[in-house]
Amino acid sequence: MTEPLPPTDDLDEVERRLRMPLVDAMVTQRSIRRILPDPVEPAIVRRLIELGLEGPTGSNGQNWEFVVVTDPGPKAVLAKQYRRAWKIYGGLGQRLRKDDQTTRILKSVKWQVDHFEEVPVMVVACLKNGPRPPVLPVPAIADSSHYGSIYPSVQNLLLGARAIGLGASLVTLPLWSGIVARRALGLPASVDPTSVICLGWPIGKYGPKPRRPVDEVLHLERWGGS
Amino acid sequence: MTEPLPPTDDLDEVERRLRMPLVDAMVTQRSIRRILPDPVEPAIVRRLIELGLEGPTGSNGQNWEFVVVTDPGPKAVLAKQYRRAWKIYGGLGQRLRKDDQTTRILKSVKWQVDHFEEVPVMVVACLKNGPRPPVLPVPAIADSSHYGSIYPSVQNLLLGARAIGLGASLVTLPLWSGIVARRALGLPASVDPTSVICLGWPIGKYGPKPRRPVDEVLHLERWGGS
Repeated sequence: MTEPLPPTDDLDEVERRLRMPLVDAMVTQRSIRRILPDPVEPAIVRRLIELGLEGPTGSNGQNWEFVVVTDPGPKAVLAKQYRRAWKIYGGLGQRLRKDDQTTRILKSVKWQVDHFEEVPVMVVACLKNGPRPPVLPVPAIADSSHYGSIYPSVQNLLLGARAIGLGASLVTLPLWSGIVARRALGLPASVDPTSVICLGWPIGKYGPKPRRPVDEVLHLERWGGS
Repeated sequence: MTEPLPPTDDLDEVERRLRMPLVDAMVTQRSIRRILPDPVEPAIVRRLIELGLEGPTGSNGQNWEFVVVTDPGPKAVLAKQYRRAWKIYGGLGQRLRKDDQTTRILKSVKWQVDHFEEVPVMVVACLKNGPRPPVLPVPAIADSSHYGSIYPSVQNLLLGARAIGLGASLVTLPLWSGIVARRALGLPASVDPTSVICLGWPIGKYGPKPRRPVDEVLHLERWGGS
């Protein structure tokens, strides 16, 4: 368990916190869903997005766009979507996996679903469609390249939030309906909302982060190689 | 321009380098495609993958798998795929965008295409298909959630490589044909190879990293809001 850093609006202090050793930021990163409704200094959110822009994009396309939501109107729309999707997937998750860890995660997600309107800042990470070659055959890796141009950036936001002491979590279910999400955020049809990063100062301590051991997921030369 | 760190096999030194301030690792991260053919200490690659496992996955599914390739056989297969895809996409890129920056990137990718067999380490980041609910309607965000469970981890690898001083670049074109890539790596049909992280000690200095200004990609409350 790690004690959270106290909330701050001081941008010099924010820069100091961003100098956390890389490995410490990674090892202590985790989804923090239980957060306070108190506002987050907008300059901090802007700084996190700026750090997001340091990540790579396919062919350096930089087709990323970020919508920062703090207004109750669009939040309520996303919250309704989240609840609808949760009714289907949450119940399913509970039936599929009954281990302690899953139960703990589902409980924490349930809290987030119930309190979604109170999340002070939602950053919607979007991709503007690049100049996709329309006449060429699209290989299976096209989707991977597409999302591979936003999630490294999202991870920068999450690591930056961790260093600053902000609670952060990454969710996609509030975007269950692309049409509804686009309308709520005024996004053009060419802009693909991919995920929502919820930000706020954390309630309580940081919990543990169970992980599969590295040798279970590392294959040498070919599948199963050790 | 930043002078690269000297190559090292010393794991204590590696840990010291991984303590680089988070913000410095992010700001100086960039794709390094021109790398030496010299081997990279396997324990360093393992450590980078271990840091990858600190990233988030959807519902903590942890359905990530990493194949570390150093053998000439599978490298040659991926290199051939890369060349074939490059013939189509590289030429297209050159016709679509003619600015200096694109020309520089394309030149660097061309170097990589020509020297791909010499890349000392390729980490193929894969996703094992989770228990996708087969009877439920799959929303548009399903693909985003899928790839959102590997690219945060990939970004950890890239940031870790940067801190250690290893050149790293993220490519998908060598996986142009999923069937060929699966066969070369012995992957079961349920495993989706998403991208290749090329690792090696860099040749020369780190170049600049041009980025769109943050206010161009940041929208307040809704699209176009400022």
